[in-house]
Amino acid sequence: MICLPGPARRNSAGQVSPFTKIFRESVSALGEEKLIACIRRWLGSASPRSPFGIGDDCAVLPAAHGRQLITVDPVIYGRHFDAAVPPRAAGAKLLKRNLSDLAAMGGRPTAAVLALTLDGRVSRKWLEQFYRGLATCARRYGVAIVGGDVAQADGVVAASLTLLGRAAGTRVVARTGARQGDWIYVTGRLGGSRRSGHHFKFVPRLAEGAWLARQAAVRAMMDVSDGLAKDLHALTPRGTRPALDSAGIPRRAGATLAAALGEGEDYELVFAVARSTDRSAFARAWRKSFPRTRLSCIGCFVATAAWPVGALNPDDYRGYEHLR
Amino acid sequence: MICLPGPARRNSAGQVSPFTKIFRESVSALGEEKLIACIRRWLGSASPRSPFGIGDDCAVLPAAHGRQLITVDPVIYGRHFDAAVPPRAAGAKLLKRNLSDLAAMGGRPTAAVLALTLDGRVSRKWLEQFYRGLATCARRYGVAIVGGDVAQADGVVAASLTLLGRAAGTRVVARTGARQGDWIYVTGRLGGSRRSGHHFKFVPRLAEGAWLARQAAVRAMMDVSDGLAKDLHALTPRGTRPALDSAGIPRRAGATLAAALGEGEDYELVFAVARSTDRSAFARAWRKSFPRTRLSCIGCFVATAAWPVGALNPDDYRGYEHLR
Repeated sequence: MICLPGPARRNSAGQVSPFTKIFRESVSALGEEKLIACIRRWLGSASPRSPFGIGDDCAVLPAAHGRQLITVDPVIYGRHFDAAVPPRAAGAKLLKRNLSDLAAMGGRPTAAVLALTLDGRVSRKWLEQFYRGLATCARRYGVAIVGGDVAQADGVVAASLTLLGRAAGTRVVARTGARQGDWIYVTGRLGGSRRSGHHFKFVPRLAEGAWLARQAAVRAMMDVSDGLAKDLHALTPRGTRPALDSAGIPRRAGATLAAALGEGEDYELVFAVARSTDRSAFARAWRKSFPRTRLSCIGCFVATAAWPVGALNPDDYRGYEHLR
Repeated sequence: MICLPGPARRNSAGQVSPFTKIFRESVSALGEEKLIACIRRWLGSASPRSPFGIGDDCAVLPAAHGRQLITVDPVIYGRHFDAAVPPRAAGAKLLKRNLSDLAAMGGRPTAAVLALTLDGRVSRKWLEQFYRGLATCARRYGVAIVGGDVAQADGVVAASLTLLGRAAGTRVVARTGARQGDWIYVTGRLGGSRRSGHHFKFVPRLAEGAWLARQAAVRAMMDVSDGLAKDLHALTPRGTRPALDSAGIPRRAGATLAAALGEGEDYELVFAVARSTDRSAFARAWRKSFPRTRLSCIGCFVATAAWPVGALNPDDYRGYEHLR
């Protein structure tokens, strides 16, 4: 089995391209069967044995009670990562993006499958580091990588992960459910994610999401991935607009207000808290559970008719439009 | 909402390219939010309402008992389909490839999520037909399209579908389980799938797979996607080799033996039947249930030491190596 361990090649800037010019170092040279055997080795204990893992037409998931959660998100070279992102971090990011979606509903992860589409000139060593990063992350969060597919396409390095999960408690929190007057909260800090490397270094807010789902006062929740200004739309009840306190938006060091509202890739949680909530008690309970995670009340949902003229309008800071 | 129905543009050869040179007809011109709204409309009743469908960070799947099956397979432009394949058929093929995997274990489908990666220059009309074909197929087989993701990548039109299912009966059939002396059967005819259009016109063998899983004599099963010669390896018990009767391999009209064994994309079922089985009774029971589906006994697993010299060696007809 030709699965020699070793770091991927770095250029003088310390960057690691997924591609190699040396055929014998490419996945093409390995061929499909050996590549799949390598992938199983790289995943190691993160991938259970068949029939509960890779190796059959389908994977079999053990019976489990209750509702299930499912989400799918990719990482694509040139879009969600580049040569400046270490391959291990790119692999971890693939899983963490999906974990962030699960966190946003108060879920905990169970299993995942991965569809890989790659150019034959991708370096075996790069791919090994990608899978090892994914596997380490999967073990940390208790995710079983139960299946996958590998397909070839010229010029592409893309991986799409489908994540399954369950409610961490008894409740799942949707994006809908906020009402007029509800407070808007956000975890952590926003903006400058690309510049700071937060976009691959972030820790998905699973514990926070599970805790928030247990609070009856939390009426709606989502993660901030395309920029708060854009994402907030999905949380905003009909007939209202989010009135934000621009000074209260928690920004990453060096991030402008526009960056905090529009850049995206924050992977923080934004949620609506019932208007009647004792916000001091809520903040105390939060600090007790998450002393190191910042929590900010950034505004509230105001009736459109009563929206204060001159207040911060999130529409002026719309986030990332994937297809433009 | 700009979701005008209408056929995609055909060239003089009747081919339909996914790409358009006219910006206003492209998905880029539509933008992400409108595109997602269009996709929901195109999917129609194949996509349940949130929280059981598209529209939140995760989709919620209703509770269900018993083991679950999961599989993932893509279609990529230039690899699994081209401009000669009508976009509706390409969309249906995406689901049918996965249904074939489910059939191979004796499963029935429940829900699916779809990750789309596409160039901004893809034509909206092409994409509409793709989704409508997928939706029609999903309704036919009772699959709920519960979620998805859309991401952009230059020069790519790729969709990866993750399919969930359950055992159709009480039993799931794996690839492992065949023993020395077991008979090898295959459904339908092999070879010439690309040339004949079978690769997108095929009907996944769900009913046949469910029936076979109910027969105790069926010890192992898989679908033929990469070519029988290659796929048979996974079914072959240790210490044995498949001894095939070359005259007995059911070929599609015009297909050579090499095509039948090596071309792939057959989406038929190959399975092992216990040596002691009354094959005449088995064939009668099959014909009663599936009078229009050909069933062929094509050989048996023979101890490697006893393998008849000069017999048909599947290794001489190895199937498609995805990464070469």
